[in-house]
Amino acid sequence: MTSLSIRFHVDLDMASETPSILMLEAARRPEQPVHESKLFAPVGVDLEPYKDIYGNPSRRGILPAGYVGLDYEAVLDTDDHTGLLSEIDTIDMPPASTLPAEALHFLLPSRYCPSDDLESVARDLFGARGPGAPRVQRVVEWIHEKVRYAYGTSDSATTAIHTFLGRSGVCRDFAHLGIALCRGIGIPARYVSGYCLGLEPPDLHAYFQVYLDGRWISCDATSDEPRPALARIGIGRDAADCAWSTFYGRGTTTFMSVVVEEAGR
Amino acid sequence: MTSLSIRFHVDLDMASETPSILMLEAARRPEQPVHESKLFAPVGVDLEPYKDIYGNPSRRGILPAGYVGLDYEAVLDTDDHTGLLSEIDTIDMPPASTLPAEALHFLLPSRYCPSDDLESVARDLFGARGPGAPRVQRVVEWIHEKVRYAYGTSDSATTAIHTFLGRSGVCRDFAHLGIALCRGIGIPARYVSGYCLGLEPPDLHAYFQVYLDGRWISCDATSDEPRPALARIGIGRDAADCAWSTFYGRGTTTFMSVVVEEAGR
Amino acid sequence: MTSLSIRFHVDLDMASETPSILMLEAARRPEQPVHESKLFAPVGVDLEPYKDIYGNPSRRGILPAGYVGLDYEAVLDTDDHTGLLSEIDTIDMPPASTLPAEALHFLLPSRYCPSDDLESVARDLFGARGPGAPRVQRVVEWIHEKVRYAYGTSDSATTAIHTFLGRSGVCRDFAHLGIALCRGIGIPARYVSGYCLGLEPPDLHAYFQVYLDGRWISCDATSDEPRPALARIGIGRDAADCAWSTFYGRGTTTFMSVVVEEAGR
Amino acid sequence: MTSLSIRFHVDLDMASETPSILMLEAARRPEQPVHESKLFAPVGVDLEPYKDIYGNPSRRGILPAGYVGLDYEAVLDTDDHTGLLSEIDTIDMPPASTLPAEALHFLLPSRYCPSDDLESVARDLFGARGPGAPRVQRVVEWIHEKVRYAYGTSDSATTAIHTFLGRSGVCRDFAHLGIALCRGIGIPARYVSGYCLGLEPPDLHAYFQVYLDGRWISCDATSDEPRPALARIGIGRDAADCAWSTFYGRGTTTFMSVVVEEAGR
Repeated sequence: MTSLSIRFHVDLDMASETPSILMLEAARRPEQPVHESKLFAPVGVDLEPYKDIYGNPSRRGILPAGYVGLDYEAVLDTDDHTGLLSEIDTIDMPPASTLPAEALHFLLPSRYCPSDDLESVARDLFGARGPGAPRVQRVVEWIHEKVRYAYGTSDSATTAIHTFLGRSGVCRDFAHLGIALCRGIGIPARYVSGYCLGLEPPDLHAYFQVYLDGRWISCDATSDEPRPALARIGIGRDAADCAWSTFYGRGTTTFMSVVVEEAGR
Repeated sequence: MTSLSIRFHVDLDMASETPSILMLEAARRPEQPVHESKLFAPVGVDLEPYKDIYGNPSRRGILPAGYVGLDYEAVLDTDDHTGLLSEIDTIDMPPASTLPAEALHFLLPSRYCPSDDLESVARDLFGARGPGAPRVQRVVEWIHEKVRYAYGTSDSATTAIHTFLGRSGVCRDFAHLGIALCRGIGIPARYVSGYCLGLEPPDLHAYFQVYLDGRWISCDATSDEPRPALARIGIGRDAADCAWSTFYGRGTTTFMSVVVEEAGR
Repeated sequence: MTSLSIRFHVDLDMASETPSILMLEAARRPEQPVHESKLFAPVGVDLEPYKDIYGNPSRRGILPAGYVGLDYEAVLDTDDHTGLLSEIDTIDMPPASTLPAEALHFLLPSRYCPSDDLESVARDLFGARGPGAPRVQRVVEWIHEKVRYAYGTSDSATTAIHTFLGRSGVCRDFAHLGIALCRGIGIPARYVSGYCLGLEPPDLHAYFQVYLDGRWISCDATSDEPRPALARIGIGRDAADCAWSTFYGRGTTTFMSVVVEEAGR
Repeated sequence: MTSLSIRFHVDLDMASETPSILMLEAARRPEQPVHESKLFAPVGVDLEPYKDIYGNPSRRGILPAGYVGLDYEAVLDTDDHTGLLSEIDTIDMPPASTLPAEALHFLLPSRYCPSDDLESVARDLFGARGPGAPRVQRVVEWIHEKVRYAYGTSDSATTAIHTFLGRSGVCRDFAHLGIALCRGIGIPARYVSGYCLGLEPPDLHAYFQVYLDGRWISCDATSDEPRPALARIGIGRDAADCAWSTFYGRGTTTFMSVVVEEAGR
């Protein structure tokens, strides 16, 4: 378990009163106890908490026109990190039909992870059969080696096919490609938005999880060093399910800062 | 309420023992009481029932190599049909942030309904604001007028963008385009697989539902006549969630027949 | 040199008087002397010969409404065939800037051969440097091994990316993928429409040519046996430049037959 | 006729000795007499002039590793400008089969202008028949109204479909969309790279030309004011044919300046 202190701040410029959805609070889970959690919005702005279809911690409300500042502060414990693939038993994957429904769901293709289209490519590169963990390990290493981390080379319409062909992107794109390739070789994979200790530069983060040996294992192809501590916000099929903000109208992010530190330091 | 008698038969040719998922039984719902429901598979084939993440009636198991015949027979009542848009109150759409979580989910773009990419087109054609029902009605009429129903012009990779540009497809493609355009104008829309009374030629069917005035309303752009009775199998974001069969291996459908009749006739 | 006798027949059903372009006659070239060449159209239909921008033998005119039958008969000599890659000197490719203008043109991406998007994939699989002929040979073998020849899995919008991902198609798609991969590794490649001796079933054919060692070498990934004799109709960047018919209106091909035989037999 | 003085400067950073193609000199044409034209490159760099397949003024050679500065200066006369559509006779388009070969070429779909895919959309919006000039005028006005000029929203893989759906881009994207829509309604259209008087901020420019009434007419949807003077560099199907630089290796543009002034001022 690692204790994390998280501070998130964003300045928004809203063109008008705008119905909005936010998903930026760390999920409260047995494996991730949240000891403190405060969301600050301008006086008079009501941001009602609710769970989305995946149980993700969401907020909804109307943001006023003009400048809006939001702050989120939390202290939590997490035992989520990457580098766990080597601990997974290298047994052959069980038949897909024996997987639980929530794992089967994450074998399906999705908006940014059209794994059906990438299936042949994935099988060529990483094999259609055999133990899952070493194949996922090779997916992660292949992406890390082949794809360049670069801002401004991808946008909200970029899919895993674009990233596979074009070989550049940001954390979201790395996660999408990892998910699509894993699904393509028969391994359930899902998207996670979250906070990451040690991320440079600090930012909201995205990574992915694969379902192996009865549990979800975190993977992150943006780094060849294990991520020491990850705090999950939301999960979903891909980034379409985990946007930190959705504005039904026009809103611009003019500033954002994220600080993730080991608590107690 | 309409009473329907449904008979579905399929002949499969499996290349080898194949983990398989099936979704072909009518959903058991208060609005759709199922009085009889029988699924026949070869002796020794176990097809375990389970609910997927959307609560859809699914089966899983291992299909043996070679010929496999499956039969499904049901008698049920349904009050689902199309032609209901004119009954919806023509009030302005409520702010998206007031929608229930399960409706918000169906505003998101998906594999075959990349509504984010089609948003400008949808708003140009059908308007971004105002009452929902007449705009959905125009979406349905526009698709019916512009898109040609034609077998062999689309396949499992065809998205709503292809159908919007290419103007031909089958029921699945009509539904995807309807969903993407409705989401693009801010109206939650989901995919439905089901059985349809009066479909010519008889087949499994796909249509879509929009969330208006607090409930889901069925729409079908493949016909300019209301569909008199629809029996729902599954719902989802798009066809990726509602395949009647998913084979984790190689299986071929060599014959399929669907009979839907008014029961008691 | 092989002497070929070619007979092409097509039945068309034109919805109305339709401006039309045809490109189906074998090119008259020093390397391909055409001894006899007759095009038959209904009385009163004038099909004016002209050369397109690539010098391809084209015809234009107005086809009448209703049934239109066209016949083309030719006798010619050709020394074009596949299987020549092994004869090319395995020297390193010269700098692109030393290539003649007409070869440089065929390094550019095109409608169905978006070689820019496939460059990373091509370089991963076949290398960015070194002698050209063995790399092209590996492109041809890779396509032959990985892509399934199948009617009905591609259409006029199918690009080399679709074929690379989906792994099935017809001769046109095999040629597009070969072209895109060769351009991606720095080797000029162009599309050829033509007649092929020994094609089974007989049909119009498409293949591709690469520019190596100062000349264009024919390649055909649809076969692992060398094609013994090829008669070129047109060349271009891809199929967009070499359609055998272009109707500015609605015309349907109701029947086509192609017979290619060794002359004098 | 307008006399223009053009100065172009670029600083390049080449990763290594790189075979390179340049296309940045104004075309020498009877309608565009070039009185002075000087290209400066570092001593020892030979940039051989040649014409590409469209007759465009091109250069090729090996650029050395490290910093490379290039300067181009020209004085020329041009009578090319936009705003000429209103002068075209509003007669119906002649049958496509009567167009000259070089116009027919520019009816074909191309890499960034997949006009085949956009044909239905173009016909819906602008009509399939009737006089060409007013329809082209509506294409230009529609693009100007609907598409936002914005840097960083498109890249070298952006096609007219992306711009049609996403509604933002730069001059290259505006030209691609104009070309694709015009071809889609049966009007030959080609891409032009060039220099533009009064462009703000100054830059290399791209626009398009349509073939109407026997000649090529310049159009530019990036402005609602006529462009007073345009100096053509190259023409082609789309930007794939008119890149100002093509490096067969890695080169970065670190600085570029373009000055276009009325000469004699």
